[in-house]
Formats: sequence, structure tokens, C-alpha cells
Amino acid sequence: VIFRRLDHLGIAVRDLEEAGRRWTEDLGFTFLHREVLEEQGVEVLMLDGGNCHVELLAPHGENSPIAKYLERRGEGLQQAAFAVEDMDRALEFLKGRGLLPIAPPSIGAGGRRVCFLHPKNVNGVLLELVEDR
Amino acid sequence: VIFRRLDHLGIAVRDLEEAGRRWTEDLGFTFLHREVLEEQGVEVLMLDGGNCHVELLAPHGENSPIAKYLERRGEGLQQAAFAVEDMDRALEFLKGRGLLPIAPPSIGAGGRRVCFLHPKNVNGVLLELVEDR
Repeated sequence: VIFRRLDHLGIAVRDLEEAGRRWTEDLGFTFLHREVLEEQGVEVLMLDGGNCHVELLAPHGENSPIAKYLERRGEGLQQAAFAVEDMDRALEFLKGRGLLPIAPPSIGAGGRRVCFLHPKNVNGVLLELVEDR
Repeated sequence: VIFRRLDHLGIAVRDLEEAGRRWTEDLGFTFLHREVLEEQGVEVLMLDGGNCHVELLAPHGENSPIAKYLERRGEGLQQAAFAVEDMDRALEFLKGRGLLPIAPPSIGAGGRRVCFLHPKNVNGVLLELVEDR
């Protein structure tokens, strides 16, 4: 088993303020923190989902993949991120099964190594791997 | 806080056999069980996601909401289900915030009471509540 647990769900939203109010005040999730990931073109509002995090993701800057996602599909569940113990071993295992990452691992929220599999290979799901040592 | 934890993620798939192989053999998730929910027009293949379940959802019978989803959006993350302690209290709280369920609670996988909020009110996410007493 390469995936230990669901680390977070990512939800693409247009307006981070408005979405933040909805998910905290109206739905009752607890706010954890807010972070801009320049490299990934995204601003993140992180919520406590109990056993995982819920990340509200809004576009930041030019060429944001979230902006492209919103244009193509609108708001909604954009990614599911599972924690792996060892990123390199996980990617090697997946490569052996014909599953290649979109790009080499980079640094994501919280300074952890992250990597994405292409949705077309995993039933339309943008599957993120997060290294969790 | 009305939501205790993420109970499961639902992924709409066209072919349950093929998707099942991918998520178990290729991705390394553990198979738990398979179930037909006649009332909801869906066949479910349940996987262990560590701290939550991952449900692969394929259409079953006529007028399946999963068939409609696949037609409109293709395969992918279709729902996120959070556990609530008391369904009636949760729905009352949400109603007070202007969030109405799509339909009254019904019986879902594992015989638990479930209820859905409309995606248009929660940033395009089909949010399911699962009673977990």
C-alpha cells in the first residue's frame, strides 16, 4: 500500500473571501491558515476537515492552473491528495504500473514535496501525492 | 462544528471492473466491498483510503445520477461525504444558513442515513452528509 491516508481535498473557487465565509460560517469548518504558493499560481485557504484538510484554491497570478480549471469546468472538487511515506519509491512503483507524473516533484503547501498524476490515467481524478515523513 | 470528518470520496467511473483494477493493482488501494444501491442508481466499489473510504461509482439501471454526471462532466471526483453526528440537527443548522438539501435524507451505502447539498450553494461541490452515530 503506497497511500497512507487522504491528506487533503482541493476545491477550486473563484472568490476566496466568499468561499471562506461559506465553508467556515455556513458549513462550520474551522479555518487553519492562508498561504500563497507563487510557483503553483494558487492562493490557498486551509480548513480543518477532521481527519484531513480541505483546501479552497483560488487563482493567483498569470497562467494559474486553477484559473484554467475554473474556465474549463467551473468551481468544484479539483484534486485529491494522498500522503505517501517516500515520494521516490511511490513514483517508482507507479511508473512500474504505467502511471507517470505530470511533472517532477515540487514544493507545495507547508513546504512538503508534492507530485501530480495525470487525471486521464486515474479516472479523471487529479491525484496528488504528498510526502509525509 | 457540524462535520466530524471526511467519510468518503466518490469518483464517477464508466467501467467498474477496469477502474477497480486501476485503483487496487496499480495505485495500491485495498478493496473493501462491492454493493448495488438500487434506489440511488449506482453500483459502488469501496476502497480503503487509510483515514476515509474511496468509492468508485458506476451507473446502475435507468435514470442514474452517475450516468448523468458522466455524460455532463466525464469521469472524476463526483462527491465528498462528511460524517455528521445528528443528521436532523445538521440539516437544521444548514437551513438556518440558507443551505437546503436536494432531497430529504435517504438510506445510502452501509444502511446509513445520507443527504446531499446542492453543488451550486457550496462552490460546485456535491457535498454529502452521512449520519454516523
